[in-house]
Amino acid sequence: MKISMYQASVPTFILMLNNLSAILEKAAAHAEVKKIDPAVLINSRLYPDMYPLSRQVQIATDNAKGCVARLAGLDPPKYEDNEATFSELIARIRKTTDYLAGFRPEQIDGSEEKTVVLKFRDSSRTFVGMPYLLNYVLPNIYFHIVTAYGILRHNGVEIGKNDFLGKA
Amino acid sequence: MKISMYQASVPTFILMLNNLSAILEKAAAHAEVKKIDPAVLINSRLYPDMYPLSRQVQIATDNAKGCVARLAGLDPPKYEDNEATFSELIARIRKTTDYLAGFRPEQIDGSEEKTVVLKFRDSSRTFVGMPYLLNYVLPNIYFHIVTAYGILRHNGVEIGKNDFLGKA
Repeated sequence: MKISMYQASVPTFILMLNNLSAILEKAAAHAEVKKIDPAVLINSRLYPDMYPLSRQVQIATDNAKGCVARLAGLDPPKYEDNEATFSELIARIRKTTDYLAGFRPEQIDGSEEKTVVLKFRDSSRTFVGMPYLLNYVLPNIYFHIVTAYGILRHNGVEIGKNDFLGKA
Repeated sequence: MKISMYQASVPTFILMLNNLSAILEKAAAHAEVKKIDPAVLINSRLYPDMYPLSRQVQIATDNAKGCVARLAGLDPPKYEDNEATFSELIARIRKTTDYLAGFRPEQIDGSEEKTVVLKFRDSSRTFVGMPYLLNYVLPNIYFHIVTAYGILRHNGVEIGKNDFLGKA
């Protein structure tokens, strides 16, 4: 049967983003109970030149919506990147998972050899569909979700690997 | 064409483990230049009840060899989990990638619906091949590799996301 491009992208992205959302809910509750300003967690980083929690969430969602749009031959929706509270970050994740859930498998399937061009400010990078998904998008999404998890864990939020894995 | 179970597992595991190995090489070099006892980095954690760097590397490799062995219907090789230096951790990764590289695609392909049983000390968990790979093994491997990265980054080792992604 093999794994379709849809199976390897949309359901996994939605699962992992929902898990991230539940982790942020726990972080918000932790801040409230411990009387911590939520902005302290949202702006926290593992090192001064790393991105803060908010940006990790933004980039994880950008990778998910960008990948699915590009594999389907569409332009990814642009978000303003102005989330500053837990509820705004959770709303961004929800907006992203709603967008992902709107794709039908036939829009994504068959994109294994599709040419995908990523445009950056001063450059562009060209990928082939399958390695773009397996070796660029998935590691990137996991990188930013696990880093978000690590930032919160490092700050004492009581979460565990099962929150990250969800009900797989 | 679709993605085979082999394509979604072995080459990705080898790529990410090689990247982790290169990151550990940079960490070892950093410790030498900065005159830091390497054991400080190897035993570092992001929070007191999280695993240290060494255990993150051990679990990442365990997930990779365990997955490929189980999908092929073999018993995973057992390692002693006694690595205490950067060179020992790097050797463990090398031993794992050598093991992975010994599998032929036909040993892994077709395992999408294979029943996989994970045995823990007091329990077991049963998976179906494809979700086992996509939603259990891959997130677990990324979780431990990114956490290893985060521990080193938090300790000032000069690495960036491109070290994690490698030459994808």
